Amino acid sequence: MSDNKPSATRRQFLGGAALAAGAAATGKLVHAQAADPLITELQPWQQFLGPGVDAAPYGMPSPFESHVVRRNVPWLTADSVSSVNFTPLHEMEGIITPNGLAFERHHGGVAEIDPADHRLMINGLVDTQMVFTMQDLMRFPRENRTYFLECAANSGMEWRGAQLNGCQFTHGMIHNVVYTGVPLRLLLEEAGVQTNGTWLLAEGADASAMTRSIPMEKCLDDCLVATHMNGERLRPEQGYPLRLVVPGWEGNMWVKWLRRLEVGDQPWHHREETSKYTDLLANGDARRFTWVMDAKSVITNPSPQAPILHGPGPTVLTGVAWSGRGTIPRVDVTLDGGMNWHQARMSGPSFDKSMHRFYFEFDWDGSELLLQSRAHDSTGYVQPTKDQLREIRGENSIYHNNGIQTWLVRENGESENVEVG
Amino acid sequence: MSDNKPSATRRQFLGGAALAAGAAATGKLVHAQAADPLITELQPWQQFLGPGVDAAPYGMPSPFESHVVRRNVPWLTADSVSSVNFTPLHEMEGIITPNGLAFERHHGGVAEIDPADHRLMINGLVDTQMVFTMQDLMRFPRENRTYFLECAANSGMEWRGAQLNGCQFTHGMIHNVVYTGVPLRLLLEEAGVQTNGTWLLAEGADASAMTRSIPMEKCLDDCLVATHMNGERLRPEQGYPLRLVVPGWEGNMWVKWLRRLEVGDQPWHHREETSKYTDLLANGDARRFTWVMDAKSVITNPSPQAPILHGPGPTVLTGVAWSGRGTIPRVDVTLDGGMNWHQARMSGPSFDKSMHRFYFEFDWDGSELLLQSRAHDSTGYVQPTKDQLREIRGENSIYHNNGIQTWLVRENGESENVEVG
Repeated sequence: MSDNKPSATRRQFLGGAALAAGAAATGKLVHAQAADPLITELQPWQQFLGPGVDAAPYGMPSPFESHVVRRNVPWLTADSVSSVNFTPLHEMEGIITPNGLAFERHHGGVAEIDPADHRLMINGLVDTQMVFTMQDLMRFPRENRTYFLECAANSGMEWRGAQLNGCQFTHGMIHNVVYTGVPLRLLLEEAGVQTNGTWLLAEGADASAMTRSIPMEKCLDDCLVATHMNGERLRPEQGYPLRLVVPGWEGNMWVKWLRRLEVGDQPWHHREETSKYTDLLANGDARRFTWVMDAKSVITNPSPQAPILHGPGPTVLTGVAWSGRGTIPRVDVTLDGGMNWHQARMSGPSFDKSMHRFYFEFDWDGSELLLQSRAHDSTGYVQPTKDQLREIRGENSIYHNNGIQTWLVRENGESENVEVG
Repeated sequence: MSDNKPSATRRQFLGGAALAAGAAATGKLVHAQAADPLITELQPWQQFLGPGVDAAPYGMPSPFESHVVRRNVPWLTADSVSSVNFTPLHEMEGIITPNGLAFERHHGGVAEIDPADHRLMINGLVDTQMVFTMQDLMRFPRENRTYFLECAANSGMEWRGAQLNGCQFTHGMIHNVVYTGVPLRLLLEEAGVQTNGTWLLAEGADASAMTRSIPMEKCLDDCLVATHMNGERLRPEQGYPLRLVVPGWEGNMWVKWLRRLEVGDQPWHHREETSKYTDLLANGDARRFTWVMDAKSVITNPSPQAPILHGPGPTVLTGVAWSGRGTIPRVDVTLDGGMNWHQARMSGPSFDKSMHRFYFEFDWDGSELLLQSRAHDSTGYVQPTKDQLREIRGENSIYHNNGIQTWLVRENGESENVEVG
């Protein structure tokens, strides 16, 4: 029988029975009492002047954070120009993904475009065919909104069982940034969509000429033609100078290096919506146009890449949750593989179709843990187990795996990716 | 008489009388009609594979954005280790300052600290003197909050008249990021503040041994001991691995490389709160402990570093506003030096003591403009003119200039820093 205790109040958190080795007799989180030479002796950085303000016009993280990087899985794809790397979720806090750490998915490498040479064309079933420069676009009213972008294949390798050891790899095909852009609706109204214009083809300027069909209703709702992310221009690998933002829908539709929008009266049935980005069911049928990313969550700490290093006692569990259908008012976590669920503490802003941050503070008794999180979204939908997903969709799928993730934490604080029945 | 028209509705914005040179006869924002070779001819980036996902584990901006950097003013200080650089506000969007562009102010250069060797001590009038490692701190509950940090000397050089040509230099000693940290209150409660403990001294581990006195009431209210900014660990120049966050109060108090918190029964009267960071009035008295940053705003585009390049017609004016006392529900802008004021459109989230983004779309008639913005905060306070500030505080001050800024925009779209009576 486990003795892990949720810390319902701060006093409970700090006054719990199982405390860190070395904690003072007061039962508090004391590391040392003044005798620590790192406090009593003058350190080099206190004695010598460091670099000045001219050292880095565009700053970078500390060299001590050099392990905090996007990582790819070399065996996953034949060539890095049509591949993916992963956001280091286990190293991150809050809900904003720093631009330098936002995962990449390319189909023909990064298009390197001088914005002075970039154009956006609107053609097809419109009153006036149009071509915009970047400067033209900056003359339209723009908006600022925070959205997650998740690749439809995120967690795809987990369909047939626990595969990859770390939330960076199981869940890291996601990022969450503040976009600044022109509502797509304004550009389409400028061109004048004809009454039979019910679909839009978005086309990228990269070597893969990525195209996706999007229903007009979504285009006129909340899509943006984005120029900025997290306060600065889009990064090259995120579509600089122009990307389509399709809130809550699978990342492949967020066409990067956006060069053309064609209005039509039916979908185009291109490769990325037929042979790819469809879900093959057990009976051989394929689900198509499964655009929305359903509610999902993952515990980022502790996790296989982020072991518990401090031994038993007060422990902070944290993770992220998101839904393509709204906000995340609630996340539950379990320490024992689903026998007991506890409501997590949500922290930071709650935006529609954005990542949310949750915490659960508890006194770890040092025994094995089976950690899971379960997101509830604002529509009432509850994140399913992987088995519940497999019951309906079989085991052929790659895309749209939003099943509950389990980490086994061992007594030594290390953890691994497992499945529980 | 000016013919500039605010664009009250989108139709008005697009259908205005004064349109860009080269606009089509439809009166729309058309750049070209399909004949543009950048659309009709295949471009290099469409033909050749670009860099793959292994190109940059930690990504950087496009080479075409190399002008978007922090800048210092070399003549301002004797040495860059005790100096300041400035956030390029005119290149930014939304409310988040990317970490690489957040302005720096050092008093002894950047302390370069291995987090394994960093300690935080709490001493003075406490029940238990304590020393925390970074790992200890990560065992406390943490919060995520978005705050602006403004140097008290921001706009200081403008006290005696218009000096510096660009909002980067007049207003760029500010950044706005999402902090993750432990509430200072929790750490102080852990040590046990004694009843006569009414002040806190915060001390940095850098070569300047920065210290500031903070009243206990503020410490127990909303201060954080922050480990992360914008989702990743603090940057070295922002106090890695630990900084004090003192929401709404002058930046100098947000002690970086935080190593010690001493509880006392009175302020310490150290250099940075006597000879510096006080406001010398005309009668020779000095205002002291003027911690709160009052409501302020600035138009970032157009501005001296961001001319109007597109000629008359639809134009987007934008800027930022903030208050150390709350939120910014409203910003007014004028195109004619204060004769007519228009309510700007606020965009993006509104957080307490955070930067806010505003826009004003108008049809520029090509005549000279005198641009100003005026922030209203949630307490009802309205940003004053510079003359109103000088009436009360004289012209000796350096700190706490939150006066209204004016840009003169000439007919050629270029602008400069001016004052209007």
